[in-house]
This record gives sequence, structure tokens and C-alpha cells, in this order.
Amino acid sequence: MPIVSPILANPLIDGRQSERAMLVRRGVQRLLSQMGAHILPELSLATGRRADLVVLTRQGDIWIIEIKSSVEDFKADRKWPEYRLHCDRFFFATHPGVPAEIFPQECGFILSDGYGAEMMREAPEHRLATATRKALMLRIARAGAARLLAAELAGVQVEAVEGESE
Amino acid sequence: MPIVSPILANPLIDGRQSERAMLVRRGVQRLLSQMGAHILPELSLATGRRADLVVLTRQGDIWIIEIKSSVEDFKADRKWPEYRLHCDRFFFATHPGVPAEIFPQECGFILSDGYGAEMMREAPEHRLATATRKALMLRIARAGAARLLAAELAGVQVEAVEGESE
Repeated sequence: MPIVSPILANPLIDGRQSERAMLVRRGVQRLLSQMGAHILPELSLATGRRADLVVLTRQGDIWIIEIKSSVEDFKADRKWPEYRLHCDRFFFATHPGVPAEIFPQECGFILSDGYGAEMMREAPEHRLATATRKALMLRIARAGAARLLAAELAGVQVEAVEGESE
Repeated sequence: MPIVSPILANPLIDGRQSERAMLVRRGVQRLLSQMGAHILPELSLATGRRADLVVLTRQGDIWIIEIKSSVEDFKADRKWPEYRLHCDRFFFATHPGVPAEIFPQECGFILSDGYGAEMMREAPEHRLATATRKALMLRIARAGAARLLAAELAGVQVEAVEGESE
């Protein structure tokens, strides 16, 4: 390994950054799972942007949760309002090391400590149009099936889970 | 291991049976994948029955494919007409060791050799009602997400796949 790397280190995508994001994600996944929701990470939307977590609630509503692991990470994202066009409710999630005040009051807010998470602020509802909801649900269903098939063809058998469709 | 097993061997669920079923499944998965469809195996329907393969076609239609690995396997299933209530088209799939004539003419028929498969007979269309389709799509989306989360929590990270939502 060269001592001087020719690749500029981007602190937003370095190892610690993604490790923190993963910890936030894990806590949020646990919280939502306890709420009876289902969660698909890293879903590409029709615009090409990727949502960190797409949530199917027990009622069948669709939420998007964007994980921000640092102040810089949040500031670098000027396009977050777009996510609202693809969900019924939109939340930011972060960890206690990031000041809660930087996140817009008009978004939901989830604080995760890596083990669990707490919903600090509910998100306002902006119901999806029927056609958008239908397209998005198809997108979620396709992505889940595609990932499972890719895993299976690579020799990783992911079995059905008790109560998975409830 | 005892020489005389206290458990009666059921030839329908012995090792060779499930191995053959898995070979049929693999060929069908490849065929459908080439058609641009997405496939989720082992989905529990609202009735509690499990569909062997649920397919989302490129057009967003829902098909069910039942895998029969032997004559007995087909004969033992008296409830297959029920599957039609949960899909737009219904198919049987088997391998060349099972006589094609035993499968009802009014169902689609796929012949799989374990590597690939061929659609020998198209299935008639019986469009799902909107509410049923919506509930089923939610079921597919939930099951996929639930399996992926279970895998992730067990330490198996299944990544997003290029073009997965198309």
C-alpha cells in the first residue's frame, strides 16, 4: 500500500462514516421492526436517487428514512425534499453525535444509538398518488426478489421468515 | 443413527424429491429472469398456502408457478385451482421425467431441465381484482424485505443489484 494515496480521501465516504451510518441504520431497523414495519435498504427511486431505507408500515404506507451520519453529510444533501415525492412520510435519522437542530422541523426525526432508536418527531403526512404508490410498491417488490435471486444464484439461500407477509 | 427409523419415509418429501424440485425451480428461475421477470420463491398467500414461485412480469402482472417433481406430487395436490385466485396466470412446472399429459390443459406448462426451461403452453389470463392485486403486491414486498432483514441481522449482507427495480 503506498504511503501517499493518489486518491483523495473523502471524509463523507470513508470507513468511519459508513460505519456510523450502518450503526444508525441498525438501530432504525430494530425500531421499525418492533413497530411491525418492513424495511428495504438502498432502494433506487424513479429519479435514480437511492433512498437509504424504504419502509412499509403495518398499514401499507410507504416511508423514506434518510440516514445522516454527520453535519457535513446533511449539508451536502440539497436534494432531500425530492424524497417527499416518493413516500407518505419522510424522516431523517442520525446518532447522538450530530446536533438535532440542524434537521428541518418539517421532517420526521429518528435518533438511533446503534442498538435501538427513538422517534423524536413524527413526520407530516403527504399521501402518495395511487399511480405513484403502485409503481413504488412494484419497485420494492422487484428489488427484494432480485436481491434474493442474486443471493440464491451465488449459493446463499435466504429462507422464508415466519410471519413475513403480515 | 438408528437402522430402523421411527419416522415413516414419505417419498414426496425425501431428499431426492426436493432435489428434483430445486432443479426444476432453478431452470424456471433462469427462464423467467431472461424474460425480465422477478421471482420470489415460497410465498405464503392469504389462505396460508405457499406458492412455489410468485412471478412479477415486466408488465407488473403476477403469475404463480407450482413445481411438481413427480406424478405423485401432482396427484397429491387437489387444491391447485385455488392458486388461480391469487394470480393473473397460473403454470405448472416439471422436468422431463414426468409425463406432460398429466397436467391440466387449462393451465400453463413449463418444462425445466435444471439449467434452463421452456414454456410449452401459455396460461390463460384471469386478471386479479384491484384490491387483491394490491394486497398481493404488498405481501411480495413485505416478504422480500423481511427475508433480507433476517439475513442482514444474521450477518449476511445482500446488496442491491444493478437494474433490480426495472
